[in-house]
Amino acid sequence: MTKAIQDLSRLCVHTITTKPWSLAEAIAGYQKAGVQGITVWRPHIEPIGNEEAAKRLADSGMTVVSLCRGGFFPAETEAQRQANIDDNLVAIDEAQAIGAPVVVLVPGAVPGMPLEEGRRQIADGIAAVLPHAEAAGVKLAIEPLHPMYADSRSAVITLKQANDMAESFKHAHVGVTVDVYHVWWDPELETEIRRAAPHLLTFHICDWRTPTQDLVTDRGIMGEGCIPLRQIRGWVEDTGFDGFHEVEIFSEEYWSVDQQEFLNRITKAYVQHA
Amino acid sequence: MTKAIQDLSRLCVHTITTKPWSLAEAIAGYQKAGVQGITVWRPHIEPIGNEEAAKRLADSGMTVVSLCRGGFFPAETEAQRQANIDDNLVAIDEAQAIGAPVVVLVPGAVPGMPLEEGRRQIADGIAAVLPHAEAAGVKLAIEPLHPMYADSRSAVITLKQANDMAESFKHAHVGVTVDVYHVWWDPELETEIRRAAPHLLTFHICDWRTPTQDLVTDRGIMGEGCIPLRQIRGWVEDTGFDGFHEVEIFSEEYWSVDQQEFLNRITKAYVQHA
Repeated sequence: MTKAIQDLSRLCVHTITTKPWSLAEAIAGYQKAGVQGITVWRPHIEPIGNEEAAKRLADSGMTVVSLCRGGFFPAETEAQRQANIDDNLVAIDEAQAIGAPVVVLVPGAVPGMPLEEGRRQIADGIAAVLPHAEAAGVKLAIEPLHPMYADSRSAVITLKQANDMAESFKHAHVGVTVDVYHVWWDPELETEIRRAAPHLLTFHICDWRTPTQDLVTDRGIMGEGCIPLRQIRGWVEDTGFDGFHEVEIFSEEYWSVDQQEFLNRITKAYVQHA
Repeated sequence: MTKAIQDLSRLCVHTITTKPWSLAEAIAGYQKAGVQGITVWRPHIEPIGNEEAAKRLADSGMTVVSLCRGGFFPAETEAQRQANIDDNLVAIDEAQAIGAPVVVLVPGAVPGMPLEEGRRQIADGIAAVLPHAEAAGVKLAIEPLHPMYADSRSAVITLKQANDMAESFKHAHVGVTVDVYHVWWDPELETEIRRAAPHLLTFHICDWRTPTQDLVTDRGIMGEGCIPLRQIRGWVEDTGFDGFHEVEIFSEEYWSVDQQEFLNRITKAYVQHA
């Protein structure tokens, strides 16, 4: 049986989780709530720039866990694929600037493009940016997304596919992200988490609500849904993973309430259910 | 390359697709549109009863392809599980009454119940009703559902799991349904369709829209989305399957328009895209 969470020392929150807050507000709010890890979404850097974001994060003493998000490599045209690659190079620069050791890649997909072709373009995109990532000391985490996003967000659907792709690079700067929301249903999950041991870079948590009202923005707080979170965390930690547990919740409902109270619900739920 | 559809001789429509229509209206409308196969949903029998439904279907000369739907076996309590089994016995009686050779099973799931336990209860439920199905000359088709329904509609998620379960019965009255909407994303789909050859009972078509506005009721007409329908049909027909192509579309949008015009769009799209 997986040991219960004892404290908040490994809790990280994604800035998108508290989307209404600026980066400065998020840092202040997270620290008030006892959260020590932060994963920064690019829209939270944009208004202030890399330098100011880096300074605020460094001053806070918080651990910057990763930058979200790069990826979205596939495209219909060569020009757009190059634009996507260029944008990933910028994301890597941002990660380096703020001291984020990992850029999480949402792989991308184009509706109607065969998934195999999408995966080929994703692998090509990663190959194109990998030297820059290595030079910057930043790792790239391939995140498999739930099959309901296979149309337009990710041709990498299962952790098996993400592992296949990560292993194909044989490179210390390419790994995977496990997000319970995307993979909890997968009958091969335990096996593939074990296989991911050498390259499991980040771990995202939340819950799946019943009924789910929206395909994107109705994620639940841990304990609110059906995901066997503690079991999956156990599999993740059995690999030797000792990184942060990152709370990534997209929710129109929670974005509309007081964010400090929402954060307090998150920390409480984390200790009870993660 | 899979041969294009030549005519409507293998086209079937689910009565839920034209939900606003009564069974009588559906029969008349389908015949006007040249549709020769019909899969009857239980709510379309209920207002008139088995005998009247059977008479109308027999008089129409249409082929009754299947009855939708049985299943939903898992439950928290023994009493509820028995109630679910009893309801499936009734569904089998209805299928027999209207001359439907197959009852499609939506397996069911209980939010928070481990998926393995859900599958165990599904297999137990099928075992409990199988003798009645055999006596009635009705086959049971296990339909794997998209992972986005793993919380509350189906613990059987992949065609591999449905095949595993079907094979475990070693019984001519248990097989599977392939619905492109549920399985199109699966990297093992071609392999598992090939494996399903001996027990592939029914084949459902529609499309996946981008963006999808609702988890249940925003399915598209063939050609409106990203599903590689012709490729999947090719795999299905390579097994020797020569049954109907059943159009099953849940759509608030299409239920709100003139159903005969909707049906005309379906028949046109079927020939162009299926």
